[in-house]
Amino acid sequence: MPQLGLLPGRAWTVLLGLLRPPPGALCIRAVRSHSQVAEALIASQLKPHQEKSNFTIKTPKGTRDLSPQQMVVREKILDVVVSCFKRHGAKGLDTPAFELKEILTEKYGEDSGLIYDLKDQGGELLSLRYDLTVPFARYLAMNKVKKMKRYHVGKVWRRESPTIVQGRYREFYQCDFDIAGQFDPMIPDAECLKIMCEILSGLHLGDFLIKVSDRRILDGIFAVCGVPESKFHAICSSVDKLDKISWKDVRHEMVVKKGLAPEVADRIGDYVQCHGGISLVEQMFQDPRLSQNKQALEGLGDLKLLFEYLTLFGVAEKVSFDLSLARGLDYYTGVIYEAVLLQTPVHAEEEPLNMGSVAAGGRYDGLVGMFDPRGHKVPCVGLSIGVERIFSIVEQRIKTFGEKIRTTETQVFVATPQKNFLQERLKLIAELWDAGIKAELMYKNNPKLLPQLHYCENMGIPLVVIIGEQELKEGVIKLRSVASREEVAIKRENLVAEIQKRLSES
Amino acid sequence: MPQLGLLPGRAWTVLLGLLRPPPGALCIRAVRSHSQVAEALIASQLKPHQEKSNFTIKTPKGTRDLSPQQMVVREKILDVVVSCFKRHGAKGLDTPAFELKEILTEKYGEDSGLIYDLKDQGGELLSLRYDLTVPFARYLAMNKVKKMKRYHVGKVWRRESPTIVQGRYREFYQCDFDIAGQFDPMIPDAECLKIMCEILSGLHLGDFLIKVSDRRILDGIFAVCGVPESKFHAICSSVDKLDKISWKDVRHEMVVKKGLAPEVADRIGDYVQCHGGISLVEQMFQDPRLSQNKQALEGLGDLKLLFEYLTLFGVAEKVSFDLSLARGLDYYTGVIYEAVLLQTPVHAEEEPLNMGSVAAGGRYDGLVGMFDPRGHKVPCVGLSIGVERIFSIVEQRIKTFGEKIRTTETQVFVATPQKNFLQERLKLIAELWDAGIKAELMYKNNPKLLPQLHYCENMGIPLVVIIGEQELKEGVIKLRSVASREEVAIKRENLVAEIQKRLSES
Repeated sequence: MPQLGLLPGRAWTVLLGLLRPPPGALCIRAVRSHSQVAEALIASQLKPHQEKSNFTIKTPKGTRDLSPQQMVVREKILDVVVSCFKRHGAKGLDTPAFELKEILTEKYGEDSGLIYDLKDQGGELLSLRYDLTVPFARYLAMNKVKKMKRYHVGKVWRRESPTIVQGRYREFYQCDFDIAGQFDPMIPDAECLKIMCEILSGLHLGDFLIKVSDRRILDGIFAVCGVPESKFHAICSSVDKLDKISWKDVRHEMVVKKGLAPEVADRIGDYVQCHGGISLVEQMFQDPRLSQNKQALEGLGDLKLLFEYLTLFGVAEKVSFDLSLARGLDYYTGVIYEAVLLQTPVHAEEEPLNMGSVAAGGRYDGLVGMFDPRGHKVPCVGLSIGVERIFSIVEQRIKTFGEKIRTTETQVFVATPQKNFLQERLKLIAELWDAGIKAELMYKNNPKLLPQLHYCENMGIPLVVIIGEQELKEGVIKLRSVASREEVAIKRENLVAEIQKRLSES
Repeated sequence: MPQLGLLPGRAWTVLLGLLRPPPGALCIRAVRSHSQVAEALIASQLKPHQEKSNFTIKTPKGTRDLSPQQMVVREKILDVVVSCFKRHGAKGLDTPAFELKEILTEKYGEDSGLIYDLKDQGGELLSLRYDLTVPFARYLAMNKVKKMKRYHVGKVWRRESPTIVQGRYREFYQCDFDIAGQFDPMIPDAECLKIMCEILSGLHLGDFLIKVSDRRILDGIFAVCGVPESKFHAICSSVDKLDKISWKDVRHEMVVKKGLAPEVADRIGDYVQCHGGISLVEQMFQDPRLSQNKQALEGLGDLKLLFEYLTLFGVAEKVSFDLSLARGLDYYTGVIYEAVLLQTPVHAEEEPLNMGSVAAGGRYDGLVGMFDPRGHKVPCVGLSIGVERIFSIVEQRIKTFGEKIRTTETQVFVATPQKNFLQERLKLIAELWDAGIKAELMYKNNPKLLPQLHYCENMGIPLVVIIGEQELKEGVIKLRSVASREEVAIKRENLVAEIQKRLSES
């Protein structure tokens, strides 16, 4: 796959270098919470009559702040993602953080219990959005939009048991790209997979694989194996767990929890443990039972076409037909896919880390119709990038390599070696700001020179302008390069032009 | 004030042209909701046994979707704001959408009733954030940060009665810039006001004025007028309403609702109806009653210094000392400010529109200490840009001027005049995407040429590459300029380079 010219600057290239979190890496938030608890205990001991401190200062369970350093990393990741979405002609869209509760009802199957509801404070019953797909479908139906290619980057909320080390939070970002509209088969679907490849390559996350399947093939398998139609969703949820638990455990759940006959479960097992490339599609076409099922044949036909388009896009070798893929959500109706990172441990003795899926999606042709009073359908296909998990990977890598990241973009620092130069510094910095130059000064009447220069070195600020008595007398400003420590005197009236020249050269 | 070089492209300059919503402009959302209701009624008539449709498809009260066109406008506004914050050396920060309920308690005075609470689903009691200031203070205390210059752009939620025409929503964006730390007086405060001026000038919103005052002066006035200290917050809230209701009504509220003696209210009235420049500061220094109050004198001293720095920054003429300014929130402790747009109606017979404040802020030296178990204080000063109101203004202007905005950034469209060219189009577009070129094609096996060219004209796509039988035979691609309709044949292997050359020239 050709290298995409997406990444700015040298630091970012280094930052996205080799992939591998250090073994036993600790979670910052967990550590922080413990020290908070300790602090609250100390505070409560100071006031002996109180059982405990009034409240612990923390973020809610499963959520976190992003520090300035983390913000830089996240913005660079989002930049790669959004640039790709725009390269494919998507328009932006935003929807509210919460929806009417009933908009979200019956869309998420077994996961519905994870939705955050708002308190009834009079008026409408509201829930925080659980993904960006249902709000998009609601938008299309509400505005009678029949055709749209949109992207949406925003937070979603799920009341999951957080396992923070793997980058799973109760509040997290999703980056979605979707194509709505009636088109010739599999062209938009193939573009979605191409986009996933471009983004995962562009982020330099190492090797990856995209598993694809089709809900109709899965339903066909259930039908020919003898699953009653009323149990399709429940059994689909069980199959969805195959990337986390073994077939033995999934089979047990199907038989014991969901009341499936053992021989039916075994027949399902024969299918869902298969995966391969386009040849597996051909093989399934020949399958004596499956080839009798109309739905399955439709799904297989579409997959064949999909692989043809993926070959033209040059990404077929990244894609595997995997019958164990189910995708938990109720709304998928056709092709489904999920991207996983393939990690080879740096040290042979280490276990490969299961990072879970980093991107996923599929076709949902019925969702918009659920919101339309007359049930008019708008076929849709899309994908969602799990930036939070990608973020965890990149963050660990930065820690491992001790990478230093600039958290500000300041270009010039305004300094003085003498007392009583606040007025001159303020006049000077206003001139720089008004010329669009990113500049800072110390909020002190009479700062010493050394701390001012140290600040520039620590923060990576490239230039310092220095004004003192002599400069004022001579009508010049000293311009200092922080890296080389070279200083030159510049006429005051030429300062802005000289700085702009230097910045454009660097 | 010098012009800031902040605005990209010609379209944006036109877009931010003359300011003025058309009289009687309708709210899109309201219209949309009505048609939704009508639709639900029709649907319910079709099913005569149901009282009403199962649910109305809408966004929650006081919220809205942002369409692709609106997204473009909002992103351009945020770009001006964030560029300015970065120019002043701020780091980014993000906090969760919700906080522990008790973090928000007792921070917002009379407005606390407007906080959205989450439903108790087991676990912690949570509320949606009401602003970005309290989460910032919580972050500083929790991480023991003593010094930080940060910006934060994010949504906040308030259960206000929405008056949508003026751009007031229950979900809206705030753009905050704050400086935390112990510094020499009024230097950070002056920078905050300079930033407000840069942003409001940079957005070309017309003339504006920043009102400043100081909570200590207001408290001093209350003290010398004879307000009992227990009523300071309540009376401050009343004064805060002076930009919406008359002094007569505010006085009535003070006396009848808040139990203030009429003569005390009258004494307050003498003060809070004053406004002016630096000369009013001098006048208040001479005021026989106020000059006896230590707090007021401190506030006046700081304001004097502030005006001195604002003069050095070249923005003093945009700032007015206004004793009616109170700012509703409880946490302010020193200087406070609020920017209002000064609108002169286009037509003489029209009433000037009250757009409310578009930016505001102040000093809050006690807030961080409220979260620290030992009460350690971190002095802070900051500002918040009301992008939602600014957005309403710009949006109205675009409607008035019938401005057309591109909602995608697509540079090249891949077209064909012949049947059976899907494979070639897919290969070609993948080549463009992999070279970082923004490209689209029609999701049809055999599209007609004219609709493909029309799409480019409608969407403002500048270039079309056309591949057909003849081009394939000759090993060339036709490159067409949409504007000039000129076509040239380019060797297939030179296509990407030629497109990149054309795009860099335009």
